[in-house]
Amino acid sequence: MAWYQKEILLTHRKRGFHLVTDEILCYIPEVKRIKTGIVHVFIKHSSASLALNENADPTVRTDMETHFNKMIPENMPYFEHDTEGSDDMPAHLKSVIIGSSISIPITNGRLNMGTWQGIYLCEHRNYGGSRQIVITVMGEE
Amino acid sequence: MAWYQKEILLTHRKRGFHLVTDEILCYIPEVKRIKTGIVHVFIKHSSASLALNENADPTVRTDMETHFNKMIPENMPYFEHDTEGSDDMPAHLKSVIIGSSISIPITNGRLNMGTWQGIYLCEHRNYGGSRQIVITVMGEE
Amino acid sequence: MAWYQKEILLTHRKRGFHLVTDEILCYIPEVKRIKTGIVHVFIKHSSASLALNENADPTVRTDMETHFNKMIPENMPYFEHDTEGSDDMPAHLKSVIIGSSISIPITNGRLNMGTWQGIYLCEHRNYGGSRQIVITVMGEE
Repeated sequence: MAWYQKEILLTHRKRGFHLVTDEILCYIPEVKRIKTGIVHVFIKHSSASLALNENADPTVRTDMETHFNKMIPENMPYFEHDTEGSDDMPAHLKSVIIGSSISIPITNGRLNMGTWQGIYLCEHRNYGGSRQIVITVMGEE
Repeated sequence: MAWYQKEILLTHRKRGFHLVTDEILCYIPEVKRIKTGIVHVFIKHSSASLALNENADPTVRTDMETHFNKMIPENMPYFEHDTEGSDDMPAHLKSVIIGSSISIPITNGRLNMGTWQGIYLCEHRNYGGSRQIVITVMGEE
Repeated sequence: MAWYQKEILLTHRKRGFHLVTDEILCYIPEVKRIKTGIVHVFIKHSSASLALNENADPTVRTDMETHFNKMIPENMPYFEHDTEGSDDMPAHLKSVIIGSSISIPITNGRLNMGTWQGIYLCEHRNYGGSRQIVITVMGEE
C-alpha cells in the first residue's frame, strides 16, 4: 500500500471553466507505479471548485460558465453576503453545487477515466488568484 | 489492506434516473470480506452521472428528471455546443452538477448506507448507450 | 496503513446550512496519528447533505438556504412525490445536487483544508430529526 501527496498551486485563471488535466498529471508521476488505486484532488477554497467533464470542445466550458451564471445570478436582492463583491456569494453557491474534490480510479498505472473526460478547475471569482490544490494518490503497487 | 477493482458495463437505460444498487452490488461480493473500508463507484462519461438518493418510491426519480429539465432546459439560445443534439449540453451540465463518482463506507462486510438510500445511474442523454463504470473496493479485511 | 471508522449522530438542526466542523473533528482524534491520508464523511439520508464551504460569515449560510429554495421551490405543480410534505421532494433534489459525502486530505496529523473552509450539514427538511453520519479515516501513520 502506497500513499503519495502533493500540495500545488494552479496559477491564476480568469473566471470560467478550465481544463487542467495535464497540469495535474505532471505532479503525480507516481501513478505509474500503482496497480489499483485512487487519485483524490482537493481544492482548498470555497469560491472555486473541481469537476470532471468533456475535454475536447471548448464551447462546452464557455456554455458551462454561461448557464451557471443564469442559474446563480449576481446581485440577487436577497443576498446578504455581498461585501466582497457581486461575484462572491454566487461563487460560494457554485462551489457547493460542483464540489471541492474529485476522485478517479487508477488501473495499471493510469488514471482510468473515459476518453472524453478531463479535470476542470472551475474558477468562480473574477479575480480568484492562484488556487491551492492537494493531490493524494493511494493504492497498491 | 485489500484492493479490488472491476470495470463493468451498465446496459442502456432511457434518459432519467435509475436505481442500480443491486446490479452494482452483484459485481463486488468481496465487500463481505472487508471490516472497514470504502466503495468508490466511478462513471467514465461526461453526459451521465452517479448519485445516492431515495430507493423506494419511483416518483422521486421521475420528479428528479422533470426538475433537472426545468433547471437546465434544452435549446437555450446561449448554448454554442449543440452539434450532437439539444440534449447534449444540458447533459454535460447535469453531469457536472451531480458528479462522476460516489463513495460509500463499508462496515463489517456491508455497505453502510441509510435504509432509504440507493445508487442512481443518472442518464442525461436520450440515447446514451451502455455506460462504463469502474468500481473500486478498498479496506481492511 | 490505518483505518478508523465511527458512526455518530448529529442532533436535530432546523432547515438550513450548519457549520459542524468542530463537532465532526471531536469524534476523530485519530487524525493526529495519520501522516498522509483521507477523511471521508458520509450522511445516511436522502433529504440532507454534506458540503464544504465558507466557515466565517453566517450570512453565507443563510444566503445558501435562500438561493437553494429559489432554484428548487416547493409545491411545483409537476412534483408527484408529495405525500410527506411540500419540503420532501425539494429535499431529495438538493441532496442529489450537493451530495452525500465529502472527503478531505490529511497531512501531518491535520485536516488539510483551506483557512476559510468548514464542513456544512445541509438540512433540507423542516423537521429532519437527528442525522446519522459515518466518518472513515484512512492513511499511513
